[in-house]
Amino acid sequence: MSTAAEASADLRGLALRAREAGRKLAAIPGRVRDAGLEAIARALEAEREAMLEANAADCRDAQELASRGELGLPLVSRLDLSSGKYERAVESVRSVAAMEDPLWRTQGATEVDDGLRLFKVSVPIGVLGVIFESRPDALVQIAALCLKSGNAVLMKGGSEASRSNRALADLIARATAAVEGLPEGWLTLLETREDVRSMLDQDDAIDLIIPRGSNDFVRYIMDNTKIPVTGHSDGVCHVYVDAAADLDKALQVAVDAKVQDVSTCCTAETLLVHAGVAEAFLGTALGRLAEAEVELRGDPRTCRIAGDGRVGEASEEDWSAEYLDYILAVKVVDGLEEAVDHINRYGSAHTDSIVTEDRAAAVRFLQGVDSASVFVNASTRFADGFRFGLGAEVGISTGRLHSRGPVGLEGLTIYKYLMEGEGHTVGYYEGDPPRPYAHRRLEEEWRA
Amino acid sequence: MSTAAEASADLRGLALRAREAGRKLAAIPGRVRDAGLEAIARALEAEREAMLEANAADCRDAQELASRGELGLPLVSRLDLSSGKYERAVESVRSVAAMEDPLWRTQGATEVDDGLRLFKVSVPIGVLGVIFESRPDALVQIAALCLKSGNAVLMKGGSEASRSNRALADLIARATAAVEGLPEGWLTLLETREDVRSMLDQDDAIDLIIPRGSNDFVRYIMDNTKIPVTGHSDGVCHVYVDAAADLDKALQVAVDAKVQDVSTCCTAETLLVHAGVAEAFLGTALGRLAEAEVELRGDPRTCRIAGDGRVGEASEEDWSAEYLDYILAVKVVDGLEEAVDHINRYGSAHTDSIVTEDRAAAVRFLQGVDSASVFVNASTRFADGFRFGLGAEVGISTGRLHSRGPVGLEGLTIYKYLMEGEGHTVGYYEGDPPRPYAHRRLEEEWRA
Repeated sequence: MSTAAEASADLRGLALRAREAGRKLAAIPGRVRDAGLEAIARALEAEREAMLEANAADCRDAQELASRGELGLPLVSRLDLSSGKYERAVESVRSVAAMEDPLWRTQGATEVDDGLRLFKVSVPIGVLGVIFESRPDALVQIAALCLKSGNAVLMKGGSEASRSNRALADLIARATAAVEGLPEGWLTLLETREDVRSMLDQDDAIDLIIPRGSNDFVRYIMDNTKIPVTGHSDGVCHVYVDAAADLDKALQVAVDAKVQDVSTCCTAETLLVHAGVAEAFLGTALGRLAEAEVELRGDPRTCRIAGDGRVGEASEEDWSAEYLDYILAVKVVDGLEEAVDHINRYGSAHTDSIVTEDRAAAVRFLQGVDSASVFVNASTRFADGFRFGLGAEVGISTGRLHSRGPVGLEGLTIYKYLMEGEGHTVGYYEGDPPRPYAHRRLEEEWRA
Repeated sequence: MSTAAEASADLRGLALRAREAGRKLAAIPGRVRDAGLEAIARALEAEREAMLEANAADCRDAQELASRGELGLPLVSRLDLSSGKYERAVESVRSVAAMEDPLWRTQGATEVDDGLRLFKVSVPIGVLGVIFESRPDALVQIAALCLKSGNAVLMKGGSEASRSNRALADLIARATAAVEGLPEGWLTLLETREDVRSMLDQDDAIDLIIPRGSNDFVRYIMDNTKIPVTGHSDGVCHVYVDAAADLDKALQVAVDAKVQDVSTCCTAETLLVHAGVAEAFLGTALGRLAEAEVELRGDPRTCRIAGDGRVGEASEEDWSAEYLDYILAVKVVDGLEEAVDHINRYGSAHTDSIVTEDRAAAVRFLQGVDSASVFVNASTRFADGFRFGLGAEVGISTGRLHSRGPVGLEGLTIYKYLMEGEGHTVGYYEGDPPRPYAHRRLEEEWRA
């Protein structure tokens, strides 16, 4: 067992090696990165048996812990790569390879003056630290996204999946090392919590931490590092049924948002209903939700409409609760502004939806609700990189810098400015006499 | 004098008020924000005398401190708003007003399926904390950029400019309060260092800190807050003269980069010269730089070429020094890769330039140098929001998230996802049987 100081020094070495590797990845052509992805996919196919064996060993241990009640059964099933999950992981690597190269894309070009052109082009962020939950297929997907976007990555998975993760990380490193032009050291698997703690200290060597997992875990990461963190701790999402709602659509959206999958961060946790349609809507909706075995916790007006104690009384805590369960808080509001204020106050800036046929109300909600994803007449459950068409996601951000909402390849890039001149000097423009800059917008793309 | 806890509570109240105001600013039309800017410009014109009087009082105090040697003379001149600087500040407000509205611009649109459209649109970041140096005109420019981009702002200026800042902040608040639709509380002037310390603790209420000023000050801010910081502490910029350089252009660029203004963050601090052209280039260049009164500190090869002790010996510290003075470190390198490695190792990821006629060398430098701005055949001094054509800048970022290089209006925005459907549910697509998403790229702009 190494001391904390040793772990920290080791980790620093790994992070600096990752920086080097990342710089090389950034500058190699997209086809080389894609060749690396294809090499990973092929190696995963060739070594399928060994990978599933390592995974089976993890699963057996987890089963045993679960049988003693020391591990939840959902975790055991997330761990298991058999029955199609392994094949889907291979497929996801190829689908990432098939995506457009996110690097060296021109985001803007300006002719500053004759012969002096400025380009804003996309480049990788650099070195990422990704800490993910117990799904070993997540390791494959994150590695694929990082390689495609030219980022080096330090990864730490759930300890229950340690054999699977080690086998997969080793396979990926070997497969890409064999590809001409790909640097070594772009992917490092961390294996101890001490490594993670050391990683959180390396704010000058790691550019971004992406933690995935439970609220408490993400909160712990956010509270214990100066490195920027992309992710979310809570998902307190709302459906608001407006006075001008089509009540059939409202029912459809509210039920889907709550029960299509109760365990996700974009599941609705609170239903807000305009007073003008509360009787009509809740009359049907409460029954339908109860049929779906959803426990309801209402404000006094909701309880009154429901009658007979069918709806429990919501406490102040319910308005900011992320149940991740068959529970829904319900509140009657007097108008759109009250709904917007409620969401901005109690929500988690993740995803919120209005149901309305009134365009002005829709626009006010879209502009006024201060969340990463704001919907009209659509279930909050759509807030996901795959559903958005981003291809794949590394996570969902409720932060307000760099990336918001589902984060795909584009969220793993930043830009740099490239300027090409012919010996241009500032003195020429800002000397005596000063000469004006032209600043003409160019449609030109930067080409290597 | 309030206690630290009181200051902290007060500051929190101001930050939460700013959040409210920011949410309102985000949703009002661009023409109302522009009307606010015009109101500020007019008030600045109408109250010119009172403003310059407050400024004159600050200048008198500063002069007195300077005469006792307690303040540098450059600071006194930065403080002074007379002789055109006040008028230029008014002009800058109008030029910000004339810029395109940075908000609610569509960055991408996808038809997820029939009747279900997803838009990625630009929105303000939210609440900014800006700490700026002793130029009171900076207050006016920052306020204008924040209002235009819909951000609320807490500001703290240099204490030497306290009267000027108070007068200007008060004028701006009054002028915008009189504009129908503009919220109060979007701009708050902080007056004590205690306030700044309290601000740095409000990581759940303030979204971004932008510190401007000395390296030590910026480093202090970065080290003492969990709020993301946009800015730079160092500017260690390089000019690399390649084997294939046009030596006339090289001389022109190197001299401009060093002496056009020695006090800026994009001033060159180190000159790297390819060994193949070192004799030819340095033969002329060292003389020209010496004529411009630049003290030279060279590596052994440079010293040998210079001969006669004309160039001092550089120490290891010189390679990472930001002189901000008439001093230049000079090193002969054996090739492009050594130059790239040197810059990535000793530089500050700010701005670096290669002089070469060889396209392959230029591309390798542009892709390999890991800095915010990388130039070919152009002086490092071009790294500036105005010269880039961004209109105005709030600062220059050497970070790798959200914004890099000169940060203008666009750097003060983030995006959110807006989705508009017709009652769409995820269960429909991901139920039994699953149905595919369409994910067609749309050219459509989102419209309120």
